[in-house]
Amino acid sequence: MDELEPLTAPPTAKDILDAQERIRPYIHRTPIITSEKMNDLSAASNVRLFFKGEHLQKTGAFKARGALNAVMTHRNRAKAGAFVTHSSGNHGAALAWAARTMGFVAHIVMPKNAPKAKIEAVKSYGGIITFCEPTLQARETTAQQIQEQTGSVLIHPYDNYDIIAGQATATLELIEDAAQPLDAIYIPVGGGGLLAGAALANHYFGKARVVGCEPEQASDAWTSFKTGNWTPVQHPNTIADGLKTSLGRKNFPIIQKHVDDIILLSEDELKRAWDIVVSRTKQFIEPSAAAGVAAALKHDTQGSVGIMLCGGNMSLSIIDHI
Amino acid sequence: MDELEPLTAPPTAKDILDAQERIRPYIHRTPIITSEKMNDLSAASNVRLFFKGEHLQKTGAFKARGALNAVMTHRNRAKAGAFVTHSSGNHGAALAWAARTMGFVAHIVMPKNAPKAKIEAVKSYGGIITFCEPTLQARETTAQQIQEQTGSVLIHPYDNYDIIAGQATATLELIEDAAQPLDAIYIPVGGGGLLAGAALANHYFGKARVVGCEPEQASDAWTSFKTGNWTPVQHPNTIADGLKTSLGRKNFPIIQKHVDDIILLSEDELKRAWDIVVSRTKQFIEPSAAAGVAAALKHDTQGSVGIMLCGGNMSLSIIDHI
Repeated sequence: MDELEPLTAPPTAKDILDAQERIRPYIHRTPIITSEKMNDLSAASNVRLFFKGEHLQKTGAFKARGALNAVMTHRNRAKAGAFVTHSSGNHGAALAWAARTMGFVAHIVMPKNAPKAKIEAVKSYGGIITFCEPTLQARETTAQQIQEQTGSVLIHPYDNYDIIAGQATATLELIEDAAQPLDAIYIPVGGGGLLAGAALANHYFGKARVVGCEPEQASDAWTSFKTGNWTPVQHPNTIADGLKTSLGRKNFPIIQKHVDDIILLSEDELKRAWDIVVSRTKQFIEPSAAAGVAAALKHDTQGSVGIMLCGGNMSLSIIDHI
Repeated sequence: MDELEPLTAPPTAKDILDAQERIRPYIHRTPIITSEKMNDLSAASNVRLFFKGEHLQKTGAFKARGALNAVMTHRNRAKAGAFVTHSSGNHGAALAWAARTMGFVAHIVMPKNAPKAKIEAVKSYGGIITFCEPTLQARETTAQQIQEQTGSVLIHPYDNYDIIAGQATATLELIEDAAQPLDAIYIPVGGGGLLAGAALANHYFGKARVVGCEPEQASDAWTSFKTGNWTPVQHPNTIADGLKTSLGRKNFPIIQKHVDDIILLSEDELKRAWDIVVSRTKQFIEPSAAAGVAAALKHDTQGSVGIMLCGGNMSLSIIDHI
């Protein structure tokens, strides 16, 4: 475990196994959840669904894996003892947690209109928050300023090979722990860290069809995949707030090469899938995590199917509406 | 396992162990859930909370235990091959499931204003629904008519020793499976089947303080316990819909004898506890299941604490409010 150099190319099989060993002492090996009632919902007969419960991961999302792996592989470069990122979502909390876990500080740039729950989560892990205007440009500029002023190491949420290697470990565990070899794997896609990691993990260690699952209202990965031209997202508007980001530049070629298909989900399909998962399994997932389920239900799935429940961080003001 | 006669007195230690063996092949041994973040919320230091996840039980609630035990112990009397009960909540679905599991039919009397989700649940387990006016008298009269017309065996939701013995197995497992001997056990109380069973299980197999947890807005068990006089509930009005019922006549003396205290929770305390459980553990529970958590947080808990998460059946129209 001496390889503390950041990756400069897409993760190899060994890179993913190294990441798994590196982060293993600090993260949860989340359970594979099965449900007869969920199996019965599939149109095809004899479908077996295996849900990977990353909503039960540290910080409530798979993001803890990539963030921790990146902090660990970049730590020799963090001479100022600090990391920095910009995030309105789960990566900010994950980096704050990962940095603190390894004895570092994390600066998190957040849009000033970020949800209170996300701000509280970053604070609870000791992250130092700098607020900025809610534009991508303001976020990047502010993060760069902090990087220059503090000597912090920037960890991008997904456009980073060490992040991709860390996220790949979620799918590696899904492949290792499912009771059967998987015929298909359904993975939500936003920036593409999880999907690129899943595609590589399956390429090296599995034999499933890998399907990316994206909201119609944030369909840049689908467009990029279908046209072969990287296309940024335009005005994303979906309840799956974790999937609003544009596909990463490093992620896209991996996805082009190793993902079998990307399919789109309507808001109604996402809501219905969220409702089904929560009511049938009693597992509280965030809307982004419903994307894989919605796709599997829609896609005339066959055989053994792995589905990534990527996170469980969601505002709970809903209790007021009961 | 020949004892297929219904109990005529409060369950003994052997009765509870027999019930456990009887129902074991058909129910889930639900997990004990722990959470460092939840432990940290307690006022006292070194508190360890052990949550019994009965929201993950068959039919989504502990009610499956009692219903199945009652169906199995009453089956020799069910010459017409049918059972009947009245229920607006989880017992109806549980009896339908239990009857079908044992090859019987179940008639479920439901108020005509019952929530759609509860009606769907009963139907999904093959229950035959008869709707009636939404009064206790209409429910009891209708159930009695069905009993007479069909020769069905009536299984009361909680005022029944075999139900109590079945529900006791949830607390028995909590005692058996928690990593430490429990100092206190917090149990929601509505009709008192779960609480009476918990008190007996702890009396025979544990050494904890047993605390009943009841909404202020449905405080009949508290009043009965504190005054020593059985007092029916008046105009219950709480989000903890499973706890609105009056304490059972058979349940009350068991609770008087073996429960250490009953404490009351405000609606705000119940909502806050629900919010905390769902956001911290990502386990989707119903509001009634928040009662034990609310009480443990309020009650300056010490040591090892068992908390019954009694169910997870709750309307999900809340997704429309995200």
